Amino acid sequence: MKNLLVALGDRSYPIYIGSGLLSQPELFKKHIKSRQVMVISNSTIAPLYLDTVLKNLKDYCVEQVILPDGEQYKTLDVVTQIFDKLLACKFSRNATLIALGGGVIGDMGGFAAACYQRGIAFLQIPTSLLAQVDSSVGGKTGVNHPLGKNMIGAFYQPQCVIADADVLVTLDDRQLSSGLAEVIKYGLIRDADFFDWLEQHVGLLLARDKTALAYAIEQSCKNKAEIVASDETETGVRATLNLGHTFGHAIETGTGYGEYLHGEAVAIGTCLAADLSRRHGWLTDADVERIIALFKKCALPVAPPAQLDADRFLELMAVDKKNIDGKIHLILLRKIGLATLPVDVNQELLELTLKTYGRK
Amino acid sequence: MKNLLVALGDRSYPIYIGSGLLSQPELFKKHIKSRQVMVISNSTIAPLYLDTVLKNLKDYCVEQVILPDGEQYKTLDVVTQIFDKLLACKFSRNATLIALGGGVIGDMGGFAAACYQRGIAFLQIPTSLLAQVDSSVGGKTGVNHPLGKNMIGAFYQPQCVIADADVLVTLDDRQLSSGLAEVIKYGLIRDADFFDWLEQHVGLLLARDKTALAYAIEQSCKNKAEIVASDETETGVRATLNLGHTFGHAIETGTGYGEYLHGEAVAIGTCLAADLSRRHGWLTDADVERIIALFKKCALPVAPPAQLDADRFLELMAVDKKNIDGKIHLILLRKIGLATLPVDVNQELLELTLKTYGRK
Repeated sequence: MKNLLVALGDRSYPIYIGSGLLSQPELFKKHIKSRQVMVISNSTIAPLYLDTVLKNLKDYCVEQVILPDGEQYKTLDVVTQIFDKLLACKFSRNATLIALGGGVIGDMGGFAAACYQRGIAFLQIPTSLLAQVDSSVGGKTGVNHPLGKNMIGAFYQPQCVIADADVLVTLDDRQLSSGLAEVIKYGLIRDADFFDWLEQHVGLLLARDKTALAYAIEQSCKNKAEIVASDETETGVRATLNLGHTFGHAIETGTGYGEYLHGEAVAIGTCLAADLSRRHGWLTDADVERIIALFKKCALPVAPPAQLDADRFLELMAVDKKNIDGKIHLILLRKIGLATLPVDVNQELLELTLKTYGRK
Repeated sequence: MKNLLVALGDRSYPIYIGSGLLSQPELFKKHIKSRQVMVISNSTIAPLYLDTVLKNLKDYCVEQVILPDGEQYKTLDVVTQIFDKLLACKFSRNATLIALGGGVIGDMGGFAAACYQRGIAFLQIPTSLLAQVDSSVGGKTGVNHPLGKNMIGAFYQPQCVIADADVLVTLDDRQLSSGLAEVIKYGLIRDADFFDWLEQHVGLLLARDKTALAYAIEQSCKNKAEIVASDETETGVRATLNLGHTFGHAIETGTGYGEYLHGEAVAIGTCLAADLSRRHGWLTDADVERIIALFKKCALPVAPPAQLDADRFLELMAVDKKNIDGKIHLILLRKIGLATLPVDVNQELLELTLKTYGRK
């Protein structure tokens, strides 16, 4: 078992990465300080792993909320169901919430924990690759709004993250690819060696080779933990984690949440960002080709949906957390392995990218 | 103008108390760092003071949300209206929200600011005595749930609090009395001299004598600022500010939010807490009489609603933020001017109080 620390002073916490972690009761007990425990999961994950987790919780008063599966359910209304259950069960402020699932469950569970009685403890147990390498780490919680992705939320850190690589065997191929999009992101924004490694080992990752997956998870979490420790609330470098995400969020919002998986939208968005970086004179044609090729190898989409034209993209991107006074700011790439901070982009080049990249 | 500091490190902020503050544009400009400004108010306060506030904001891009007035509207659904407007206007994460109103507007506006894009800046402009002396200071934000008062929320500090005593001239008598309940609280929990002063000056306060009101506001804010600075997230002494509130919240929830004003429910709750403190052998009969007499002089109710019997009270009190693993904990009084920390109360004495105090 690897144990990485997210160093945030009195809000520091460990990320445990390894095999068979869901069956280690002492990991859970170490981080649960209450009698009352609420487990949040979804209808896909609960049948697979809820019993395993509950076996660790025999000494506690445990309740559960099983939510429908999918990004389209990441709403304030669904979070309200968690509040309803917590209150119906008379859960106190010292209670603990466990989020068992992918990014959607982690984001909603974390937000429910942040807001219930102004904050209760919570544990992240990510069961998708995407959640293990990205969304479960760093304390970003929240829900979508019809007008914008992740627009309602809180920075709220968990007690720990338990990433059991064994659960990835039940992950479907599309979800695995979606997670790889965020893995590739770390290579692109700050770790050129890791990007090279990914190019060489993508076949093993897709074949779910345990050693390769464990290395990819660890490298991703290490990169993420370093960034979060240096900029918890995204006043600077943390924004680089949003490479491709402004385009990606526009795709998710514009197509109705749920049509694209988050990582799929991010893959397309990153290709758009790469194209725009090239137009700014930073990436070469060859760089952009390498990036697109790696996403393609991962069976990820690389062209924007035909129904979103440039105008609709711009409209959707007008709401983004990196924008300043309503003006679009984007993360671009100086080179493979080095991202910019949010750039007040050249509007003409942005429109050129949106009108031409990936369009027939 | 008085300027009190709430000392919270990099989240420190001033409370401005004085006359004519709503007409001082430089106070606003000092604390607004964005072009986009959203003013939240309600249908009672907006016709009275919105124009005055807007005059200070001519250099900004200003939008507004006017909500219905009353505790029954302090819900997640109503906060959603604020999110909708912020997104429809494409407000960025560097935008500023101004909460212009009483405690309900301050709590909801603050919570909307805490959650919009995971946190935007906000200014508190309390227009009721209760908001000026209590709810606008200290960063407690949130909304009610049908099963419990203030159950959904966040600790989120404003950029400043602007308490203009002049606005109290338009406050109706019932609201003024409601605010005095929280003023009296500070005397009871930690400031016996202030309690004595209140007994002597209650007539002037009710006659809205400006000097007396200004002194009461300042003393209250001073007490609150000291407590909040020493315990921002209520792990200890801050809980004493909840004297009478567990009973009070049960009254508000049990009668449907809006029948009792918050301060009215707190007045009754404080009398119940005083009666229970007497049964624990801490307050004398004479102490309890003094407390009840002062609330009565303020035209505040002192007996619980007949429709809430002891069993219903206990049921409602089972959900409270001070409870631990579902067990009721209360703030009581050792003497006038000294509160206990949350006490795991003697259940028998609690039932005795609920069954007999204020019952015919």
